[in-house]
Amino acid sequence: MAGNTFGKNFTITTFGESHGPALGAIVDGCPPGLYICESDIQRDLNSRRPGSSHYTTQRRENDEVKILSGVFEGITTGTPIGLLIYNEDSRSKDYSEIKYKFRPGHADYTYNHKYGIRDYRGGGRSSARETVMRVAAGAIAKKYLATLGIRVMGYISKLGSIELPFVTWEYINENPFFCADPTKISQLKNYMDSLRRDKDSIGAQISIIADGLPTGIGDPIFDRLDADIANCLMSINAVKCVEIGGGGKVVSQLGSKNRDEITPQGFISNNAGGLLGGISTGQPIIVHIALKPTSSITTLCKSIDVNGNYVDVVTKGRHDPCVGIRATPIAEAMIALTIIDHLLRNRAQNYDVKINTNII
Amino acid sequence: MAGNTFGKNFTITTFGESHGPALGAIVDGCPPGLYICESDIQRDLNSRRPGSSHYTTQRRENDEVKILSGVFEGITTGTPIGLLIYNEDSRSKDYSEIKYKFRPGHADYTYNHKYGIRDYRGGGRSSARETVMRVAAGAIAKKYLATLGIRVMGYISKLGSIELPFVTWEYINENPFFCADPTKISQLKNYMDSLRRDKDSIGAQISIIADGLPTGIGDPIFDRLDADIANCLMSINAVKCVEIGGGGKVVSQLGSKNRDEITPQGFISNNAGGLLGGISTGQPIIVHIALKPTSSITTLCKSIDVNGNYVDVVTKGRHDPCVGIRATPIAEAMIALTIIDHLLRNRAQNYDVKINTNII
Amino acid sequence: MAGNTFGKNFTITTFGESHGPALGAIVDGCPPGLYICESDIQRDLNSRRPGSSHYTTQRRENDEVKILSGVFEGITTGTPIGLLIYNEDSRSKDYSEIKYKFRPGHADYTYNHKYGIRDYRGGGRSSARETVMRVAAGAIAKKYLATLGIRVMGYISKLGSIELPFVTWEYINENPFFCADPTKISQLKNYMDSLRRDKDSIGAQISIIADGLPTGIGDPIFDRLDADIANCLMSINAVKCVEIGGGGKVVSQLGSKNRDEITPQGFISNNAGGLLGGISTGQPIIVHIALKPTSSITTLCKSIDVNGNYVDVVTKGRHDPCVGIRATPIAEAMIALTIIDHLLRNRAQNYDVKINTNII
Amino acid sequence: MAGNTFGKNFTITTFGESHGPALGAIVDGCPPGLYICESDIQRDLNSRRPGSSHYTTQRRENDEVKILSGVFEGITTGTPIGLLIYNEDSRSKDYSEIKYKFRPGHADYTYNHKYGIRDYRGGGRSSARETVMRVAAGAIAKKYLATLGIRVMGYISKLGSIELPFVTWEYINENPFFCADPTKISQLKNYMDSLRRDKDSIGAQISIIADGLPTGIGDPIFDRLDADIANCLMSINAVKCVEIGGGGKVVSQLGSKNRDEITPQGFISNNAGGLLGGISTGQPIIVHIALKPTSSITTLCKSIDVNGNYVDVVTKGRHDPCVGIRATPIAEAMIALTIIDHLLRNRAQNYDVKINTNII
Repeated sequence: MAGNTFGKNFTITTFGESHGPALGAIVDGCPPGLYICESDIQRDLNSRRPGSSHYTTQRRENDEVKILSGVFEGITTGTPIGLLIYNEDSRSKDYSEIKYKFRPGHADYTYNHKYGIRDYRGGGRSSARETVMRVAAGAIAKKYLATLGIRVMGYISKLGSIELPFVTWEYINENPFFCADPTKISQLKNYMDSLRRDKDSIGAQISIIADGLPTGIGDPIFDRLDADIANCLMSINAVKCVEIGGGGKVVSQLGSKNRDEITPQGFISNNAGGLLGGISTGQPIIVHIALKPTSSITTLCKSIDVNGNYVDVVTKGRHDPCVGIRATPIAEAMIALTIIDHLLRNRAQNYDVKINTNII
Repeated sequence: MAGNTFGKNFTITTFGESHGPALGAIVDGCPPGLYICESDIQRDLNSRRPGSSHYTTQRRENDEVKILSGVFEGITTGTPIGLLIYNEDSRSKDYSEIKYKFRPGHADYTYNHKYGIRDYRGGGRSSARETVMRVAAGAIAKKYLATLGIRVMGYISKLGSIELPFVTWEYINENPFFCADPTKISQLKNYMDSLRRDKDSIGAQISIIADGLPTGIGDPIFDRLDADIANCLMSINAVKCVEIGGGGKVVSQLGSKNRDEITPQGFISNNAGGLLGGISTGQPIIVHIALKPTSSITTLCKSIDVNGNYVDVVTKGRHDPCVGIRATPIAEAMIALTIIDHLLRNRAQNYDVKINTNII
Repeated sequence: MAGNTFGKNFTITTFGESHGPALGAIVDGCPPGLYICESDIQRDLNSRRPGSSHYTTQRRENDEVKILSGVFEGITTGTPIGLLIYNEDSRSKDYSEIKYKFRPGHADYTYNHKYGIRDYRGGGRSSARETVMRVAAGAIAKKYLATLGIRVMGYISKLGSIELPFVTWEYINENPFFCADPTKISQLKNYMDSLRRDKDSIGAQISIIADGLPTGIGDPIFDRLDADIANCLMSINAVKCVEIGGGGKVVSQLGSKNRDEITPQGFISNNAGGLLGGISTGQPIIVHIALKPTSSITTLCKSIDVNGNYVDVVTKGRHDPCVGIRATPIAEAMIALTIIDHLLRNRAQNYDVKINTNII
Repeated sequence: MAGNTFGKNFTITTFGESHGPALGAIVDGCPPGLYICESDIQRDLNSRRPGSSHYTTQRRENDEVKILSGVFEGITTGTPIGLLIYNEDSRSKDYSEIKYKFRPGHADYTYNHKYGIRDYRGGGRSSARETVMRVAAGAIAKKYLATLGIRVMGYISKLGSIELPFVTWEYINENPFFCADPTKISQLKNYMDSLRRDKDSIGAQISIIADGLPTGIGDPIFDRLDADIANCLMSINAVKCVEIGGGGKVVSQLGSKNRDEITPQGFISNNAGGLLGGISTGQPIIVHIALKPTSSITTLCKSIDVNGNYVDVVTKGRHDPCVGIRATPIAEAMIALTIIDHLLRNRAQNYDVKINTNII
């Protein structure tokens, strides 16, 4: 059933498979008056682009996006924005071997059972390739949010058992890991190289911060901003855990420590991660996600074929040894899309949300 | 803005505040032909009812539910089911002191900023009291799912730093903690008593398992079942973390260990928690949530009033020293509501889902 | 499947059957800060109330509404508003004869086939009795719209072949027909009396005008305001035609006459009925609906029973000889609900819509 | 705000302007297993294509559609179907004169006020050009419905004051008017030629019949099938009236004549147009729509510019002298989309709807 539209007020609907002719999106509900051009989107696409480093999949895609509607003389008109990217480097023959096999850890098994038919080439629609359109749409959301002083930024905070604490935003786009600590890069490279030698893969934790939000975003009791953030992040391939603020650590915290006391100068801590009762407090939104290790590794494993018979599976194709790395721009995009959707819907009652509606 | 409806095919819409005259829900989309009566719902309501033990809030509510429509001669007719519960033991005078103050860790601050007006009595709509209607609606969902062999069950798996491993479902309803291990009860009681003496509170982790699901439930790429489970659970008051299957632990797992290999006899592990590509595999769905400690404790803390001036806050009222405990039936209800919603929507394409539509 | 929620931003969800214990609604998304009390709603309920004149059904209901949530100290808080009306004069025994029969022109046949089970008492959920909750929710919408200078008013413009042109709003609530022409009342009374003698019924046309709308309401290409007005009116029992502006007459109009030319002083005509491209022009919205004659008449007719066998049907019960008459406040309510829903959603982009958000 | 998605279960989301580079659609929720190829869609596109006769706009577009996803080896996979058509014959310079003027009867005025910015070339998004994507998506819906024995067919039933009764489906695609009566063609041609000489335009009535529907489609009380049909048709440019079954004529009908009596052999009439209580009866759905005359005619008229000053407007461009004619395939498409959406949603409860889910 239809499940490819995200959002209510600022919506994105996407299509496209890993090895089909093209991927596309329709962004609907973008306010008129925003300057936007293809290069605004391209910047974000490039940061998630496959083939850009030794540590991600070697598939090479230019991911060149075309804006087909909704922008007139460089300015959004309020009508839907059509986006299109043609696939260029899809080597479908890599996949003929798995035509009748289910790769463990992948969606092959569930797609086959659900739909009765499966585009097996590169995982078809279930491939992380579909996230290119999330990032493209997210770039528009981020540009709009930026005009309001809202920024959404992520970094890798853990890779395997290597803790990667936040040091500086400046460094993030200058290394292939979205790592915010320059001193950790050689350790990461060595670990990734050893993984590749072992024909194995590893999980990762990504942290995202959104700051500049006004107080008052989120619609209890079901359309809470925290609930929708959990939704948008768990919809990303390989994500198995979403934490807000203190996250899993709150289990062993005392109430006297956890509650963020308030002073006339503001909150004195942010264990809540910027959300109380599902509504933004005005503090930064802080979120962490855990991504499982890539299931496609070149180490042989056991599985079954479509007839239920035992088979060996060795995934050839070209894959990321740590899918978590490239998830950073995707998670940023999903958070940006969630925030803009809520922001526009809250403007409906004009509570506390003041927005500049001049051409921006 | 409107945010009080949950689901698309089997929807619940709720109303009601902690100290208003009544709480209610409309359950829309329940298939016709299901035997349902008030006592089916009452059973679940009683398990989350306040005042039922020494270890939860002392507010006493009978939570007696009335079915006002949608059921004719004991059988659902396919029309919306109206549910109503009157509040009985609301002591609003307990709250007059916080009329102009924001309790840290509560939604007082955000509701005030969002809406410009706030029913301060017991937190109004932001009180966990609203969850009574989630449990009532969830009971209908659970009864329907049971006719298909689907069960949703939860237990407390951690309280503070006390690990509470699963031992047996039988014991869960026989202790006030939803604990599945009979040997841990005295430790829990002692710890809770010490908390009360210290005027403090603690967090908890709840685990929920749904078994009996057919393969094929969930609609990628945005209406994935895992994304909607994350959403439904993060919408519960005090939840700060949602984990599926391996959850946060996947960060440090190797791909060769994490991927669940398949044999003709079935999957050999379930790190995925019953979900691949956002679609149910047919294995049990396994989910964990972390709930923060109750913010309302009788230890004095710093805050501000509605004018931004410094104030001391001591919460009187009647509160749970560990809100996580009573979250077990609420989390079960939300998962049941999410599953039935997806199940009915998937029947739309009739993929793999076979359902008995006789009167049940 | 779930179909009992109307709107996206200002939503109403309703429940209740003709002869069940109660009917109810949840109004979600009403802006905070609106003064509202039960008597505001009661006024509109009284105008559609059965038993209020010799010319409508003799069922007597007080239709006394209770507000159960969402209003604190007389002011809306932004949380959902629960509304409840208990049924008082339901004589279910009147209907036992039709338990196994399908009344022609009614939904008995379709409900039975769709759901496999039917609350036959008074038509159950398919009875026009459900419209009481549309009117209650509509009263809240109308009060909010009134604060913005938007009024929605209707009158009967045709009954059978009697044309009833608009003369004055003042007279409408002073006659049992919602007729705007005082000179027509005796003709209407005579005609209705003759119908009753003939044990027959008749159709009617209702016209509704909404004025005071800002320019710019409506979201092409699918969520156009005209499309949503057509939807809301065709959802009323017995309506078979919806016309906007020139309506059916545009078929034989020339373009040179139909297009509404514009001058610096404004449009020189309003054949468009206040809508161009699905967006409000700022002129009055003008709509006409046609309602079929009551199917429940005491003249015998042919039908079948649930086993497909031939039966005679004579409807006893208590019915309106012209259902169209009481449709006036219902149509007003539906238009008001549609306009407020669009108005709030358009405020999301703040285009041209300026709204006072002080407490009103 | 977002308004470019239609449907809930089988959804279409569209983008594109009259003179932009391309138009596109995403069809989401199409069941897997349907054979579909571009020529299936092209057939319907050709029937609404501009430039195909002397009696419609002279703009020449091949309207060649590409399927970009969702179909694998000629069969739908259950994933979203991306559709794309490039614009070829857009002469934007025709429109430079109206850059600052509002054409009466068009959406220029309302778009300008709503969005503050307007793609004036050919009406931009408000052009009937957007309907090309409705027809493309509708072709997929029609093919699916055909496998269930459901057909949706339309014809022109009135042009100006010329009544065009139904004679035979065979003739409809063999004349440029979608006229079902071969004897009327010369009269139509003469009338259209005289209109062109007079530089004027005329309205039309289109009738659509859907047969083969099972009993039980439609979800009261708000998601009724009749309400959604009214919505889908009123969303078509220039439509001002939607009638179901007896339509406007029911106003002067007696109840004893209007109600469709039932016999063991079936209904003896179909004044209800195949819908009772908003649910399909199993009889043919019968609908009529009225379309206003084209506003763009070469006769000078009065208007204002964006500064509110008086201007003369003479529309150059290339336009249909009767927009109603080409509305036939568009109306068919919208009805087909509405029916498939309801059909799939009703299969959720499996009531009375039996559907072949083999590869078709």
